[in-house]
Amino acid sequence: MVEKAMAPDKVKTGIPGLDDMIEGGLERKSVIVLAGEAGSGKTTFAMQYLYSGAALYKEPGLYITFEEQKGSLYRHMARMGWDLEKLEKEKKIFVLEYPPHEVDSFINQGNVIEDLIRENGIQRIVVDSATSLALLREDEYKRRQALLKTIDSLRKWGATTIMLSEAVMKGGRLNVRFGIEYLADGLILIYNIRKGDSRELALEIFKMRGTAHERKLCLMKITGKGIVLYPNQQVLAGSGGKF
Amino acid sequence: MVEKAMAPDKVKTGIPGLDDMIEGGLERKSVIVLAGEAGSGKTTFAMQYLYSGAALYKEPGLYITFEEQKGSLYRHMARMGWDLEKLEKEKKIFVLEYPPHEVDSFINQGNVIEDLIRENGIQRIVVDSATSLALLREDEYKRRQALLKTIDSLRKWGATTIMLSEAVMKGGRLNVRFGIEYLADGLILIYNIRKGDSRELALEIFKMRGTAHERKLCLMKITGKGIVLYPNQQVLAGSGGKF
Amino acid sequence: MVEKAMAPDKVKTGIPGLDDMIEGGLERKSVIVLAGEAGSGKTTFAMQYLYSGAALYKEPGLYITFEEQKGSLYRHMARMGWDLEKLEKEKKIFVLEYPPHEVDSFINQGNVIEDLIRENGIQRIVVDSATSLALLREDEYKRRQALLKTIDSLRKWGATTIMLSEAVMKGGRLNVRFGIEYLADGLILIYNIRKGDSRELALEIFKMRGTAHERKLCLMKITGKGIVLYPNQQVLAGSGGKF
Amino acid sequence: MVEKAMAPDKVKTGIPGLDDMIEGGLERKSVIVLAGEAGSGKTTFAMQYLYSGAALYKEPGLYITFEEQKGSLYRHMARMGWDLEKLEKEKKIFVLEYPPHEVDSFINQGNVIEDLIRENGIQRIVVDSATSLALLREDEYKRRQALLKTIDSLRKWGATTIMLSEAVMKGGRLNVRFGIEYLADGLILIYNIRKGDSRELALEIFKMRGTAHERKLCLMKITGKGIVLYPNQQVLAGSGGKF
Amino acid sequence: MVEKAMAPDKVKTGIPGLDDMIEGGLERKSVIVLAGEAGSGKTTFAMQYLYSGAALYKEPGLYITFEEQKGSLYRHMARMGWDLEKLEKEKKIFVLEYPPHEVDSFINQGNVIEDLIRENGIQRIVVDSATSLALLREDEYKRRQALLKTIDSLRKWGATTIMLSEAVMKGGRLNVRFGIEYLADGLILIYNIRKGDSRELALEIFKMRGTAHERKLCLMKITGKGIVLYPNQQVLAGSGGKF
Amino acid sequence: MVEKAMAPDKVKTGIPGLDDMIEGGLERKSVIVLAGEAGSGKTTFAMQYLYSGAALYKEPGLYITFEEQKGSLYRHMARMGWDLEKLEKEKKIFVLEYPPHEVDSFINQGNVIEDLIRENGIQRIVVDSATSLALLREDEYKRRQALLKTIDSLRKWGATTIMLSEAVMKGGRLNVRFGIEYLADGLILIYNIRKGDSRELALEIFKMRGTAHERKLCLMKITGKGIVLYPNQQVLAGSGGKF
Repeated sequence: MVEKAMAPDKVKTGIPGLDDMIEGGLERKSVIVLAGEAGSGKTTFAMQYLYSGAALYKEPGLYITFEEQKGSLYRHMARMGWDLEKLEKEKKIFVLEYPPHEVDSFINQGNVIEDLIRENGIQRIVVDSATSLALLREDEYKRRQALLKTIDSLRKWGATTIMLSEAVMKGGRLNVRFGIEYLADGLILIYNIRKGDSRELALEIFKMRGTAHERKLCLMKITGKGIVLYPNQQVLAGSGGKF
Repeated sequence: MVEKAMAPDKVKTGIPGLDDMIEGGLERKSVIVLAGEAGSGKTTFAMQYLYSGAALYKEPGLYITFEEQKGSLYRHMARMGWDLEKLEKEKKIFVLEYPPHEVDSFINQGNVIEDLIRENGIQRIVVDSATSLALLREDEYKRRQALLKTIDSLRKWGATTIMLSEAVMKGGRLNVRFGIEYLADGLILIYNIRKGDSRELALEIFKMRGTAHERKLCLMKITGKGIVLYPNQQVLAGSGGKF
Repeated sequence: MVEKAMAPDKVKTGIPGLDDMIEGGLERKSVIVLAGEAGSGKTTFAMQYLYSGAALYKEPGLYITFEEQKGSLYRHMARMGWDLEKLEKEKKIFVLEYPPHEVDSFINQGNVIEDLIRENGIQRIVVDSATSLALLREDEYKRRQALLKTIDSLRKWGATTIMLSEAVMKGGRLNVRFGIEYLADGLILIYNIRKGDSRELALEIFKMRGTAHERKLCLMKITGKGIVLYPNQQVLAGSGGKF
Repeated sequence: MVEKAMAPDKVKTGIPGLDDMIEGGLERKSVIVLAGEAGSGKTTFAMQYLYSGAALYKEPGLYITFEEQKGSLYRHMARMGWDLEKLEKEKKIFVLEYPPHEVDSFINQGNVIEDLIRENGIQRIVVDSATSLALLREDEYKRRQALLKTIDSLRKWGATTIMLSEAVMKGGRLNVRFGIEYLADGLILIYNIRKGDSRELALEIFKMRGTAHERKLCLMKITGKGIVLYPNQQVLAGSGGKF
Repeated sequence: MVEKAMAPDKVKTGIPGLDDMIEGGLERKSVIVLAGEAGSGKTTFAMQYLYSGAALYKEPGLYITFEEQKGSLYRHMARMGWDLEKLEKEKKIFVLEYPPHEVDSFINQGNVIEDLIRENGIQRIVVDSATSLALLREDEYKRRQALLKTIDSLRKWGATTIMLSEAVMKGGRLNVRFGIEYLADGLILIYNIRKGDSRELALEIFKMRGTAHERKLCLMKITGKGIVLYPNQQVLAGSGGKF
Repeated sequence: MVEKAMAPDKVKTGIPGLDDMIEGGLERKSVIVLAGEAGSGKTTFAMQYLYSGAALYKEPGLYITFEEQKGSLYRHMARMGWDLEKLEKEKKIFVLEYPPHEVDSFINQGNVIEDLIRENGIQRIVVDSATSLALLREDEYKRRQALLKTIDSLRKWGATTIMLSEAVMKGGRLNVRFGIEYLADGLILIYNIRKGDSRELALEIFKMRGTAHERKLCLMKITGKGIVLYPNQQVLAGSGGKF
């Protein structure tokens, strides 16, 4: 697996329309931050990434969560036709739940997680969320070090990771918390843009190391079959250029 | 009850117009945050949810409050024709009041509350408010853990919960405090929008896990019979698109 | 008095034009916050409330102050033709002054104040100001608890209370400090709106529990006979909709 | 002097145009805050108040400073034709300078200052500045108490006081620091308004207890004979209504 | 020297166009703050002040720095044709460098500096920067006292001083840090104004005690011979009045 | 080498179009801050600087990093055709990686680094990033002192340095953190400007001591051969002058 992980090939995200924007997929072994406000579809995006890996690309996936409950997560995702329970039984999807008082132990359980990854050939990881990890520490420096250490571990484990992160909309910009976007290999933003009385979701590749990515807002919809991107539709027109 | 609670059925909110926006109602066992400024009708919304459950749907409800007094609450709601006193006597509505110095004990009284819920088949809970709970803790991490623990308990108890939360209007966005919207299953916002010298209330489903909800501002009025939504009326027109 | 206090009747504010906006007056036994910037007429409003109670409605009133001096207060109010000194002698107006270093003792003197209220049949109270009370405490939680405890006492004493509060104008919104508007039964705001080189005062009922109140800015003037409202005059027209 | 101080007469400010805006002058024994940015003419205003008192109205004045040096102050004011040195020798102007490390002693020297005031019949006081006084204390509550105590002393001494205060321009509003405007009897603001490449000064009476004052921006100039107001000239026209 | 320093004459700044805006120059013995963002030419302005004093007006100057290195400073200024090395050898320019860990000793070395000033007839001082001095202290009060003490010393030493200060552009205003503009005798601001893709520098006399100065933005350029002002050219035209 | 380093010659940046904007290149021995948001191409800029030095100008370079991993860095840069591995073997490129818990040791390892520089004739240094260094310290003063000490060391070592720094976009301005732009010899900003749904990169020379640099936004692209500037193309046109 190590050899394969070091190859410069690409990991298919499973989000229709996204891979074309980033030269075919995520760089293998990279750690990408996916940030957005509450309700912007971050969890759906992340599960679609794991599901398509497990179901379509033979890449087992691991979902590490400090916030979501597996039960309701599986139930919600079943709406998209994704049978995560079955994939879990087939050892194609793994879930590690850390309740509130055990988040800290995640950071110290590197070996256990690493064993799980190696034994099962896990290729994709989702961490939900970087925000919860950072909040464990009190000052900016310690938060950054904790995030940096986590990112280092994730890279060492050889899988390709999506870290979810909360973001705050301010002055037309979506600010990721704790500066994690500087440490990660990529940053994908999901905006929730008001258009009159309505809102629309839009995705932007803000950073993607080693990739000639597009720098353009892309309309995003959560459909009955998961997230779909519409790269050729205008987003800000009709919103007065405002968010 | 457990079996029923795990079924994917929906809990009717009792707010005319709302259930149609969220695929028939709230997901059973979910925890939804209802946020708005002072005077935006959060308490009326919450009591309408409990009242309609008790009076129309045979779902007993529990109101847990750290702020409101039962006496004035009942008196105000009587204006809508809701006889909460009678429902309380019939064991269809329950109220737990925690005075300022006992809020902390709420968090440690899980068993007592759970017994109350199970013995009386309580299906609906309102927590007034999440803000009071969060303020018990000093730093952002502890606040989040306290909220997460409370949400876990609420889910375990099997009822469907609405947690009220204060929100602050800033730069045309209604910001929920303490990031509770990331932890809960849903977020409903009530805006108080200025239109010239007047104001109008508007409701928005910002997040609703596992639900294909509308992303649209919806005119809301507090009438003599409670809250009513007008999904087909424009809200921001006439306000210059501003809040 | 207790029986009367529990009746759902209304307390006349004595502010011409206001009672019609709130179904005839303030709810008896409620605690209402009146907030505005310096110089917006909060004290005049409060004294007009007490004066009209004492002089017109046979409702003795109590003014509890941590900031104003009785001497200059009486002198200023005499300009409106309000002889507060005489009313004080007739036991229709009472004043409790707490100098800076004794504010804390107010919170612990509940019994003394309660006796004063019961012995004299006091029906109206003004607290000047909630801001001073809140500032006694260091963190947000303790401030809120102190305010909640004070509001509880005020309700228990059976009078109808107006608590003055400082407010800060920011981004076209008047922000009340310390979140007291969530705890009180009502919130009345006084704006100081710029119109070119001039300014005009305007009043808004932002929250009034159990009352079908108007949600509309109302022109306000401080005349030689006290505060007068002009509900039918436009306020923001001519200010470009700005504050 | 006590008797006279309690009379409801007015203290002439000596600023041409100002007294007409505030019913003939400042209320005797009141404490007025004069706030503005650096370079807005606060010190000139204050000295004009003391000079005119001493030279025209037979009201000796006291300048209490924590910041300015008497030498350069006298030299600058001589430009207006104000011979403060001569007035000091004639015991019509008094100056108390507190170097940085002695500001605290001002608060504890009440008796000494009171003696000075009574022995010399001082009718006018300037405190430069309230900001320096407030900064001695660490938290908002202690700052407020220190300011409140100082204001109480000033009133007790029977003179009419102008306290200078720094202010910060933000979002078209001039914010006074530490909330002193709530505690004082009046608040006069001096704005420094940009008009294209230029700036103009403007004065506004924001608060004046017991006075039917104008609520209007008033053009202000610092001339060779001191400050002059132009109540009939438009200020914001030409600035786009912006500051 | 003392006698001369007390005379009301003016100190020529050596900046073409500036002296005419401030009645012929800086007031002798005054302390003026020069504030601007990084790259706005503060150091060039300061050295031009010292150079012209030493080379043209027979006024030796002292440069006290906590940040710049003499070597690169001299090299950069040589571009303007200013041979500071030669002037230093002729005892017309003096430089005191305080490395990071010795800034504190500056405050306690008053006597040494005073001796240097008196022995060499130093008439002009530049302090680079007030920001570094202020940062030595932890809270706002101590910072202000440290600045006040430094300003007092500078005045006592009898030279005319320019203190450089960092400033932060926010909402179209250039905010000086730590409120030093209230304590100093004058404040000169340098703006870095965007005009489409370009930027232009502009200078403004914001405060100048005892001086009838212009209140107008003035175009400023850094030429091959130092800083030049263009008082008759419009600045904000073409920038939409924005910064 | 010392002699050469003291010569006033220029260091070619290797960024096509940049050297012409800054009189032929960076001043030798200077320390320049390169600041931008995540994903703005800072690392590519820095490696292009080192690569062109090593491959074209016979100036060995050193990359000091607290954040990036050499492996992925080399792989990403190989896309531009830059064989950094080969240059490292030829002793033309050196890399020092400091893992999170060793950043502090960098500050104390001056001698080791200095030896490396002198023994290998290193002429160019990149520090990635100044932000990480600053975050090691807790308060603003200590951060500034740490940065000042690092800059002093870098100058002493005789190479020409680019320090990367995070920046935060706020109100149309790109704010560098910790005020490092005041301490360094130059500041180059990279903006990520929204134009409708798209974004474009733009570079601005904000400060460059001793250099008559342009003050103009310059279009920047990351091409398959590295960064290229387009000084003659308009940037803000089409963005409404906004960022």
